[in-house]
Amino acid sequence: MTQKSLEICFTPAAFEAHADSEAVVVVVDVLRATSSICTAFANGVREIIPVATVEEAREMKARGYLLAAERDGYILDFADFGNSPFNFSPERVRGRSVAYSTTNGTGIMKQAAVCHDVVIGSWLNLSALCKWIEGQDRKVVIVCAGWKKRFSLEDAVCAGAIAERLLESGRFSTICDSVHAATDLWNVARNDLLGYIEKAAQRSRLRDKGLDDCIPYCHTFDVTDVIPVLRGDRLVAL
Amino acid sequence: MTQKSLEICFTPAAFEAHADSEAVVVVVDVLRATSSICTAFANGVREIIPVATVEEAREMKARGYLLAAERDGYILDFADFGNSPFNFSPERVRGRSVAYSTTNGTGIMKQAAVCHDVVIGSWLNLSALCKWIEGQDRKVVIVCAGWKKRFSLEDAVCAGAIAERLLESGRFSTICDSVHAATDLWNVARNDLLGYIEKAAQRSRLRDKGLDDCIPYCHTFDVTDVIPVLRGDRLVAL
Repeated sequence: MTQKSLEICFTPAAFEAHADSEAVVVVVDVLRATSSICTAFANGVREIIPVATVEEAREMKARGYLLAAERDGYILDFADFGNSPFNFSPERVRGRSVAYSTTNGTGIMKQAAVCHDVVIGSWLNLSALCKWIEGQDRKVVIVCAGWKKRFSLEDAVCAGAIAERLLESGRFSTICDSVHAATDLWNVARNDLLGYIEKAAQRSRLRDKGLDDCIPYCHTFDVTDVIPVLRGDRLVAL
Repeated sequence: MTQKSLEICFTPAAFEAHADSEAVVVVVDVLRATSSICTAFANGVREIIPVATVEEAREMKARGYLLAAERDGYILDFADFGNSPFNFSPERVRGRSVAYSTTNGTGIMKQAAVCHDVVIGSWLNLSALCKWIEGQDRKVVIVCAGWKKRFSLEDAVCAGAIAERLLESGRFSTICDSVHAATDLWNVARNDLLGYIEKAAQRSRLRDKGLDDCIPYCHTFDVTDVIPVLRGDRLVAL
């Protein structure tokens, strides 16, 4: 196999510059959407339907779906629960179809659907995800969900760790500056990942709302082997 | 003075999320637009009119302006010269009005014109620029021109150096993740700045076109005290 190209896109606002119908896109939204999605599949959810807007979320609830939905860290009042990974417990989600809408993460999943495959990345499934990607023989674009079009440190560091792993496999090469930056940030952070994430704006936002209990969990390596992948309008486990 | 907020925007694609009519915007396009602009003012240019499109560039030439214009490193065939800082020599530019259009840098200058002030930043004028900004008592947004909406390493590192200097003044604080990332990258790069920039995509692009002779110069600190600022549709020296 020839080496395939590896790119990172730090914000959905720049996704157009990276979009490629032949690429595998990895969506990363560490705090908290992609960590929660990995957790839901580890806990036996049947499928997750990402919905971008509040109106779509309301409609899915009316159609009988279990609904996880928040904006800016607040649960939408008609939703069943919000965006903490701890909400997606086996008792709640096993065998169920869940509609899911968040501030940042779910919008980019729909935006990336033009690409060959869209998979969900987090610290929780990093090794399994990288192993699967290495077998695909395709260009890879890791997209950081960020925060309202802005760069997010916790997503960039996780993207850097994924990129480093992929480059180490020898199956990828890169001429993408974001990959160099993200792997350098990961190497700054790696010896004290939680300490490094202390300065992330999202860490403060979650603390201010009392939602930061999940942060250590969201930065735990390899809790699960699940690889959520977008098939049509919904995420299923590979 | 209370501390003012400091942000970095890594790509013009995300500028909307950072735009603020009360802010001072610093545009950074190290290779090569903002380095060339600082050089031009150091060499006595009277004013520089940034133009975003090829059509506007053609029109300015027809109106009698000296025209510096390139796309993807190639001089537009009707332009007087291209985007190397070495083109903006005293013999050529002293006392002249120059219309200027580049692949990335000049577009964001026009986009940022909604903000309170737009100034031009580079390694060449870093200390003078920071000293002036510290006296403004305003929110600051440093915008990296990047490459066709993508993140550029050389701009991020320069933005990080500017941000570090501003934070050290005690007059600014930040809750912007891009500032943390950029200052960390600057600290990775600072002991061997030119060596670090070797991996930047723009470094390779310029080498491939034989245009990389200006790279060491573009990474030289404090060659000039000029601070180019946008006034209406043109840049003048403060």
